Amino acid sequence: MRKIKLTIEYDGTNYHGWQIQKNGITVQETIEKAISKLFDMQLRLVGCSRTDVGVHAYGQVAHILTNSSIPGDKICYAINNLLPEDIVIKHSEDVSEDFHARYSSKGKKYRYLFYNGAHESALMRNRACHVRPVLNLDHMQKASKYFIGQHDFAAFQATGGQVRSTIREIYGIDVFKREDNLIGLEVSGNGFLYNMVRIIAGTLIYVGIGKIEVNEIPKIIESLDRTKAGKTAPAQGLYLMEIYY
Amino acid sequence: MRKIKLTIEYDGTNYHGWQIQKNGITVQETIEKAISKLFDMQLRLVGCSRTDVGVHAYGQVAHILTNSSIPGDKICYAINNLLPEDIVIKHSEDVSEDFHARYSSKGKKYRYLFYNGAHESALMRNRACHVRPVLNLDHMQKASKYFIGQHDFAAFQATGGQVRSTIREIYGIDVFKREDNLIGLEVSGNGFLYNMVRIIAGTLIYVGIGKIEVNEIPKIIESLDRTKAGKTAPAQGLYLMEIYY
Repeated sequence: MRKIKLTIEYDGTNYHGWQIQKNGITVQETIEKAISKLFDMQLRLVGCSRTDVGVHAYGQVAHILTNSSIPGDKICYAINNLLPEDIVIKHSEDVSEDFHARYSSKGKKYRYLFYNGAHESALMRNRACHVRPVLNLDHMQKASKYFIGQHDFAAFQATGGQVRSTIREIYGIDVFKREDNLIGLEVSGNGFLYNMVRIIAGTLIYVGIGKIEVNEIPKIIESLDRTKAGKTAPAQGLYLMEIYY
Repeated sequence: MRKIKLTIEYDGTNYHGWQIQKNGITVQETIEKAISKLFDMQLRLVGCSRTDVGVHAYGQVAHILTNSSIPGDKICYAINNLLPEDIVIKHSEDVSEDFHARYSSKGKKYRYLFYNGAHESALMRNRACHVRPVLNLDHMQKASKYFIGQHDFAAFQATGGQVRSTIREIYGIDVFKREDNLIGLEVSGNGFLYNMVRIIAGTLIYVGIGKIEVNEIPKIIESLDRTKAGKTAPAQGLYLMEIYY
């Protein structure tokens, strides 16, 4: 059996998240159907990150086991022919037997987009979080830097997360202005708690509108208290950018 | 009667263009329905630019006549409540009686987006034109500059355009790299022939892939011959950015 690594882009708008479930069509099952049809046998797709309803990806990673003789770098083209246009396999390659999309991961990078304008945007409505008050970019940038490093991020974990330790390391974080009223947040780290990026994003919105002071961030982290951080920012602004191996 | 100027953003994906027609739902009729409901009478919306099927807008302009007493800058909020989320009135204001969305226009600015990657993009599939071969940005930038100034753009007009003169002036044109494999083209001018921006975009694709040389552009313009220019680039990459008054 060969092991194939797939790098996947998707527009999460019309899916009930990544993982197969009863309530609606998911990204995972849509790809499983395509590869099962391609290889004419039921195949299991093992993904790295279980993205939530409405979350997008530029760089989700999954692996499959197959006996097919299609060259590794050509498999993506064959699968794409069978996928709807809001899911694209960007890259496929043979990997060693011990590779595992989830357990071999050494870290991830996420992006979060804020649309800062008086009205919701017609073009970015499913791609960014609308924030009406003018955001103070400088304050958001300064506040974001407090997240860098190894911390106990218990204050930035949604209930429902089931992990032994809430200690994570953030490698880097940037808040930057983009054109068309957009503000971007990019954050990379060795791992993220449930909804952690969205809670960081929601906390930075509060910093941007003056509801939380820049220098309050270290105290909020230290509190380990979810109620001290900002709201969980909505799913449609979140993008899984890259997974490190 | 008061005259109100509306600035409109829309995602053109699900509309049969701007202008009311029999074959499908258009942006114009969708807004007319909303304002007619708001003001409880049949109102006519006069738009500046009849964008084609699938074309987007950040800055379409239209005007209406109304007896309403709602303050000019608040009318947009009232209309937005009655619009689907892929159309947004970004701004509304009282204008003088002699203002006309179409005939008062002194020029326009368009953007065209190219997605340059091995595979079509799931996230930009309705927002950019997919170009697979690697585009030479430098060549596209140099070629674009030949369009600046007053020229007879007959070679850049689709059949079906009904205008007396094909002479137009381009004020400025830029080709620039954006993140996520995107290349943008922005062009402003006093007016544009039918499909002119999309034919310029298609011609610059040919320059970017080496099918047309940079220094051939002046000859193509001078030829006045549509068959000498590139193909008409697809609608989904085009954005009406701004209208000058």
